[in-house]
Amino acid sequence: MNLQTVHSILLAISYSQAFQYTELAQYVDDHQEEYVEALRDWVAVESDSSNIFKRPELHRMMEMVAQKLREMGGTVELVDIGEQELPDGQTLALPKVVTAQFGSDPSKHTVCVYGHVDVQPAKLEDGWATNPYNLTDIKGNLYGRGASDNKAPVLIAIIRTSTAFMWLYFYISLPQTITDLPVNVKFLIEGMEETGSNGLDAFILAQNDTFFSDVDYIIISDCGWLSRRPALTYGTRGNCYFFAEVEGPKQDLHSGVYGGTVIEPMTDLIGILDTLISPSGKILIPGIREAVAPLSDEEWKMYQDVEFNLDHYKNETGVNQLMYNNKVDLLAHMWRYPTVSIHGIEGAFSDSGTKTVIPAKVTAKFSIRQVPDMDPAVVKKQVTDYLYSVFAKRKSPNSLKVTMVIGAKPWLADTQHPLYEAGKAAVQRVFNMDPDMIREGGTIPIARTFQDVTGKSIIMMPIGGFDDGMHSQNEKISRYNYIEGTKLFIAYLNEVAQIKSTSV
Amino acid sequence: MNLQTVHSILLAISYSQAFQYTELAQYVDDHQEEYVEALRDWVAVESDSSNIFKRPELHRMMEMVAQKLREMGGTVELVDIGEQELPDGQTLALPKVVTAQFGSDPSKHTVCVYGHVDVQPAKLEDGWATNPYNLTDIKGNLYGRGASDNKAPVLIAIIRTSTAFMWLYFYISLPQTITDLPVNVKFLIEGMEETGSNGLDAFILAQNDTFFSDVDYIIISDCGWLSRRPALTYGTRGNCYFFAEVEGPKQDLHSGVYGGTVIEPMTDLIGILDTLISPSGKILIPGIREAVAPLSDEEWKMYQDVEFNLDHYKNETGVNQLMYNNKVDLLAHMWRYPTVSIHGIEGAFSDSGTKTVIPAKVTAKFSIRQVPDMDPAVVKKQVTDYLYSVFAKRKSPNSLKVTMVIGAKPWLADTQHPLYEAGKAAVQRVFNMDPDMIREGGTIPIARTFQDVTGKSIIMMPIGGFDDGMHSQNEKISRYNYIEGTKLFIAYLNEVAQIKSTSV
Repeated sequence: MNLQTVHSILLAISYSQAFQYTELAQYVDDHQEEYVEALRDWVAVESDSSNIFKRPELHRMMEMVAQKLREMGGTVELVDIGEQELPDGQTLALPKVVTAQFGSDPSKHTVCVYGHVDVQPAKLEDGWATNPYNLTDIKGNLYGRGASDNKAPVLIAIIRTSTAFMWLYFYISLPQTITDLPVNVKFLIEGMEETGSNGLDAFILAQNDTFFSDVDYIIISDCGWLSRRPALTYGTRGNCYFFAEVEGPKQDLHSGVYGGTVIEPMTDLIGILDTLISPSGKILIPGIREAVAPLSDEEWKMYQDVEFNLDHYKNETGVNQLMYNNKVDLLAHMWRYPTVSIHGIEGAFSDSGTKTVIPAKVTAKFSIRQVPDMDPAVVKKQVTDYLYSVFAKRKSPNSLKVTMVIGAKPWLADTQHPLYEAGKAAVQRVFNMDPDMIREGGTIPIARTFQDVTGKSIIMMPIGGFDDGMHSQNEKISRYNYIEGTKLFIAYLNEVAQIKSTSV
Repeated sequence: MNLQTVHSILLAISYSQAFQYTELAQYVDDHQEEYVEALRDWVAVESDSSNIFKRPELHRMMEMVAQKLREMGGTVELVDIGEQELPDGQTLALPKVVTAQFGSDPSKHTVCVYGHVDVQPAKLEDGWATNPYNLTDIKGNLYGRGASDNKAPVLIAIIRTSTAFMWLYFYISLPQTITDLPVNVKFLIEGMEETGSNGLDAFILAQNDTFFSDVDYIIISDCGWLSRRPALTYGTRGNCYFFAEVEGPKQDLHSGVYGGTVIEPMTDLIGILDTLISPSGKILIPGIREAVAPLSDEEWKMYQDVEFNLDHYKNETGVNQLMYNNKVDLLAHMWRYPTVSIHGIEGAFSDSGTKTVIPAKVTAKFSIRQVPDMDPAVVKKQVTDYLYSVFAKRKSPNSLKVTMVIGAKPWLADTQHPLYEAGKAAVQRVFNMDPDMIREGGTIPIARTFQDVTGKSIIMMPIGGFDDGMHSQNEKISRYNYIEGTKLFIAYLNEVAQIKSTSV
């Protein structure tokens, strides 16, 4: 009997079984190794969306996701979302978006689970203790690029869905254990999240009256907890990512032979980068800080209630001193104030050793995390105007080109919505405690688009641990978060099923 | 009959043949392709001395040089010069130094030819039009890393030496064409020049009373001409190469998740780098400019006489404007004033794409070309004192470590010495014109050591073209410079043989 048939039988069966959380949780525990193996297969794919040379891997990753969903009998589509324009004017096919549907019972709510399976760059020589594409279990932590951000959370949603069917498959002779999905589940899995979800906005706009028409709630399972306490996330910062390119000589020059005869692009680039941020971390670009919504008393109070240990955070980052020494200031600057980070310089000498070169063309990469009420279009103008003006004062014969390559908006939800109440109940059931209500310093660009385009209610339910090292060396997810997270998802869908339709 | 035997026979033959320049030059022309193939073999070895992972290639390169010299029947040694200490405290074997000796007739002068066979880093993706390790002939230019700096010049000296023997070998039945070396020739070939000739100073000190005891003159064949006119070089700048490392978090952090909570090492590093150089290229480190010997009237006049086309130089570099618009100022800043170049930053994000990372540890690489009367030990103190003081003002929780990893002295020779007169005569014979008397902005650290330790007279006879792109993408040597350079070397050794012993 194949899975398609199982699925058909299931759909024909009455959906009246009581919610069997304990049995499902036990089932998940029993199948833990299977789920780790599934994650291993996915982590092995270097689906780095920022590196155009890895695009074939990214395409392969999307096919694997589709295949996984197909195996469970879902209605799966790989949707072409067009091409990406590269800086040199060439185009590159975007990874397809995977959609899937399980169930279409009009008496049930329909949730759409959004996730991504692209990853940040990672190389062993960046300082990984293990091969970033070989999932490695060390003391119950599963190390690998994308393990926490965002492959395990996507797998969790798939596992929860498959649990309904696979359980039947294995225990077909024990009909009393048959369970079913308490809600209809749709999937929307993309492969460009780490670089700004290129092409997905257009997809959502185009599918608003079709794919999204019967969706009630959107569940985003990304980011991580803030402490050992589970969390629900109600806001993210946006991200404006800039390239500042200074070009001078037509090719790299020997610094001995040519040094002293040309104004070096690196000197110019360092000079303009140094005008972005003060030594104490203050943003110096005119207009940026003025646009930020003021911190309200209620918000201040909420931050007070969050479980957050400054000392632990300091130890975790390994810095000698944090930028702020009290919880509220630190959380506020982590979540709801903008920051500028300079990530690096392309085109200069970056290897070990002592090359004596005058790099001809150097491109700085920096980004601004932005928050309500900032607007990416305005930020773009503020940054480019400022840098061009600073550069002009240098009277350099070199040329400067500033471009904003990502402009993702921040997102903010209502923490009183039934979707969040359901989340609190699910956390209570699985972990026997209240979740922290948190925001996220990072960016889930699509959260804002879901809100603006579909008008649906959105919840962000993080699964990753607070110390997972997303985007960093030695990214991991713990078995605890992976497996308990799966149970949380099981409990959550059941809670969502209880939401009264008027609350939608 | 093997080459050893040929050599023995040769040594037994009277060295009384007249100098047969025309025949030797013709021989070189006839064997051009053979010499290009020899260069191809050498360029194929990625003998990058700055990259510790390429060390095996460097060892192989030294063996190839030794083998080449052995084939000609020279007395060849591969001399162990010890180990290199790495920043992490580990050690790595230095490439051996190759020495060779051809002839020991006390009635002849003895010259020592110094050269190096290590190269600067090069990767196709840096912007090379061809594979940098596959010598590629395009319109008479031979492209490849190390082609001009310094593999072809070393081969030229070897070819000149082999010409004496190989000619005999091929034309054994025509004794009237037998020629011989007019001087005894020694070779000293090293593999660490590009990173400061690590270990060679100690070697020279140790061998001063042995290898160097019977050497009259040292010929350094490195660097390039200044125009299409051949040149003799009488000075080089020194090089103090610095690492400035700023360290903060214990590992890279996600700029969204952590941005706003830590003072980022990149901000600090950019901040201190920006205090090194003014926008117009002026060095801002206190004390550096004050130490420079003033430009004399005689020097100013010499610079006036040099053939140098500012427009051509501007076109060659491709900049919109040079730092100075008159020949003397430009040459002075290229040759005899110090400069600071910032080469790049290790540890930051340097690939294409848009990684959102807060790099935990970033190391800037910059160097100061220094000139008489600067002293590397003083420069080291000036730079480190200055940067630590600038950094302290930032009150950063991060840590700074400044180290000087190369401290190579400048060198200056007397242009009236018979060794230079011999050079002028050789240039006249081969090219039918006077050479330009030039200095070199780059550094040949060992020139100064030869001067200080051995007390021998030194000449630098450049072979490379003015547009060879040493240390840059698409380095090349033209067939013209390679082949005519070989003839120049043939003519030069003959001129050196004429120097009266009292002039030594």
